[in-house]
Amino acid sequence: MSSSAQIGVTGLAVMGRNLARNFARNGYTVAVHNRTAARTHALVEEFGHEGGFVAAETAKEFVAALERPRRLVVMVKAGEPTDAVIEEFAPLLEPGDMIIDGGNAHFADTRRREKALREQGIHFVGMGVSGGEEGALNGPSIMPGGPSESYDSLGPMLEKISAKATDGTPCVSHVGPDGAGHFVKMVHNGIEYADMQLIGEAYQLLRDVAGYEPARIADIFRTWNTGRLDSYLIEITAEVLSHVDAATGKPFVDVVVDQAEQKGTGRWTVQIALDLGVPVSGIAEAVFARSLSGHAALREASRGLAGPKAAPLGEAEAAAFADRVEQALYASKIVSYTQGFHEIAAGSEEYGWDIDLGAVSALWRGGCIIRAAFLDRIRAAYDARPDLPSLLSDETFAREIAETQDDWREVLIAATRQGVPTPGFAAALAYYDALRAERLPAALTQGQRDYFGAHTYRRTDRDGSFHTLWGDDRSEVTA
Amino acid sequence: MSSSAQIGVTGLAVMGRNLARNFARNGYTVAVHNRTAARTHALVEEFGHEGGFVAAETAKEFVAALERPRRLVVMVKAGEPTDAVIEEFAPLLEPGDMIIDGGNAHFADTRRREKALREQGIHFVGMGVSGGEEGALNGPSIMPGGPSESYDSLGPMLEKISAKATDGTPCVSHVGPDGAGHFVKMVHNGIEYADMQLIGEAYQLLRDVAGYEPARIADIFRTWNTGRLDSYLIEITAEVLSHVDAATGKPFVDVVVDQAEQKGTGRWTVQIALDLGVPVSGIAEAVFARSLSGHAALREASRGLAGPKAAPLGEAEAAAFADRVEQALYASKIVSYTQGFHEIAAGSEEYGWDIDLGAVSALWRGGCIIRAAFLDRIRAAYDARPDLPSLLSDETFAREIAETQDDWREVLIAATRQGVPTPGFAAALAYYDALRAERLPAALTQGQRDYFGAHTYRRTDRDGSFHTLWGDDRSEVTA
Repeated sequence: MSSSAQIGVTGLAVMGRNLARNFARNGYTVAVHNRTAARTHALVEEFGHEGGFVAAETAKEFVAALERPRRLVVMVKAGEPTDAVIEEFAPLLEPGDMIIDGGNAHFADTRRREKALREQGIHFVGMGVSGGEEGALNGPSIMPGGPSESYDSLGPMLEKISAKATDGTPCVSHVGPDGAGHFVKMVHNGIEYADMQLIGEAYQLLRDVAGYEPARIADIFRTWNTGRLDSYLIEITAEVLSHVDAATGKPFVDVVVDQAEQKGTGRWTVQIALDLGVPVSGIAEAVFARSLSGHAALREASRGLAGPKAAPLGEAEAAAFADRVEQALYASKIVSYTQGFHEIAAGSEEYGWDIDLGAVSALWRGGCIIRAAFLDRIRAAYDARPDLPSLLSDETFAREIAETQDDWREVLIAATRQGVPTPGFAAALAYYDALRAERLPAALTQGQRDYFGAHTYRRTDRDGSFHTLWGDDRSEVTA
Repeated sequence: MSSSAQIGVTGLAVMGRNLARNFARNGYTVAVHNRTAARTHALVEEFGHEGGFVAAETAKEFVAALERPRRLVVMVKAGEPTDAVIEEFAPLLEPGDMIIDGGNAHFADTRRREKALREQGIHFVGMGVSGGEEGALNGPSIMPGGPSESYDSLGPMLEKISAKATDGTPCVSHVGPDGAGHFVKMVHNGIEYADMQLIGEAYQLLRDVAGYEPARIADIFRTWNTGRLDSYLIEITAEVLSHVDAATGKPFVDVVVDQAEQKGTGRWTVQIALDLGVPVSGIAEAVFARSLSGHAALREASRGLAGPKAAPLGEAEAAAFADRVEQALYASKIVSYTQGFHEIAAGSEEYGWDIDLGAVSALWRGGCIIRAAFLDRIRAAYDARPDLPSLLSDETFAREIAETQDDWREVLIAATRQGVPTPGFAAALAYYDALRAERLPAALTQGQRDYFGAHTYRRTDRDGSFHTLWGDDRSEVTA
């Protein structure tokens, strides 16, 4: 076997298979390998006509098939399976070779692996891939981390197979060292959770408060999709809502069990944000909303709890309300992205990644679930001012969110009054109002902490830490 | 040295010192030990008159001073210092001896340590201690986990030194195996965060919407403290709010920097809840509110964001509003505790701890920061029905929260309209409305997930997992 393959993919479940085909369709010779060789042969048999494949039955054959420096893409389950594959292949590689992990790894694992492999001279690239099966085959959004020199040789290949933004730019760029790529992919998923939750709340408000049927709501989403909310998720929401269940003739959304499932990345986004001290309340509410929906017995036991039942508005009011919901959704979405980008900035700072936030925004413009016209504007905001304290500090976003104020609040007031749960909208507004507040009750919190735990406090009028002798004469001492 | 001490304390910083004195004051002979012996001698010199102390300079002396089975309380920093102390003492102990960790350990560390020591026949008791320095000395709330047989000999001593509830019951009981004690202590702290955040929001509403000065708000909290909100935190809130800064003559709360600090346990409570799939949105918002308050530069950059400025109410309306705030605070507090107890129940289920939720509630009635009359009622609820799906399923709480409905919602509406951030109140109401909802937008979420990721969904009308061929003829297939 000659070392003719420019890239290799091991792990040929649907994501790995589609990524391998994507490389082959773009003119690369792709070595393919799987723990069970049957899958390898099936791939070549079924899709061999699409391009150049080299089927490898063993790890040794696989490595031997790759030209040097070797580029070996691992597409197996995150966690132990990834470690097992690395352990199997690393001894067969030479300095300068690359292992590229395209799974959904936790960035801390990626950091650990990168460090261990670096000591052997192997470049480890933790690569976030978004877009599901479809994206893997036809063009995903790709978020590679790892050593920047690995991007010199790997980058052009990824640029070929990646999605392209509407302006033709490939949706891939080197995110930063070690775990940066997987970190950014994680936050992408957290933002996706928040987007989906906010869309869900908008839908519920249109259903319960405006009193619209799913088909009509689908039309509204279609209209929204022609404006500033233009995005893949809004587009498919319209598709899902307009779908009618063939078996019952009912709206599809009404026959689906309302218990949302989740994989780990939304949860990780919140857990890591907590470690970094970044408030990501919108993403947290989205994750909690999914968990809550799944507690069927608890929900069943709670159905009798007192509260208002939504009374749909009349036709004229309903239309005006629907417009307001668009404003509330857009404002809440700005807040979600503000929180997500804050987390990326904080991670970048903590781990010294020096991530270009504008570039991250740009590479989400195609291929991935949150692709949206909106991301062009985020990129413009960071390009104009890379040290932007937050997205809300951008003039355009600040002006836009200013314009939503009355509608955003009125929508929440209606939800509160009518008992429609809007945790995402509410968390977004509370975050916005807290950020702009002159004073927060955190001063009282500090006073309480000093009272019960002598935790000390700072003063607004001079430097230092202070403690009040609460149990004594309440004089103040320097701590 | 004779083996005369019934208990030993190693680690004599303020918590350890006070706990040792508490044992001594209660008639026990206490062996005391510290890494630097000076602190040991200082303790005996200063407080030797309070009871029987045996000063031990070395680990060997310390162990030799203890009667068998030895009871050795470790009061050092959580994390590596705790492991170091265990490593030092374990080889000196014999089967049946106990190591009791009274620090703020993560329950997963406690599980690991308990397992390792069990193999050596040593009983490891992870013991949550709440009440700060004051509690350690005069009676804390104590949450011991570990092997139940260790409680036979340790329990009576803990019952002596613990706080007592108003009915005289000691605020201590065996919580459950291995990490159960530290887990419950962690959730206690999470609930404490939520309580403090809700109190902070109530204060801010009384300040900005009712237009009251801190002294007047202190009076309101004093009144509240005579009713169903009767609790240590409400009591000290009144003390902090009525305090006047001597240097400036201003209300104390106005001279304190409004950036709240935190240690790790609130954060852990949320992170673990995410792992367990338990929605603890109120606790999460409390942790996020503290982080947000500390982002000074971000807040500074956000002060100019558009939004309403609160316009205080007139005198008559303000008084009515204050009453409504009490209702909103009480309702939100019920939700916080519902979420916290849900997390304990889920942890108990996950780790097989078989925790008695009523007993947990009972042992928080004295000594700890969240001590409150309210806890008697939680105990009553769980005693009446140990399998209560949630606190909200209790008839009394359900009725009470039903009575708060209009006021709770009106307070949130005022906050929303006037731009006062109330993330805790809002999260509590959204949780409540989501729990009681007939249908949640989670069905749409599942539809979207099936559309973009073929994640499948369940149907309301028959069993199984299904997938719609969205990219094809949209027929449905069994997954």
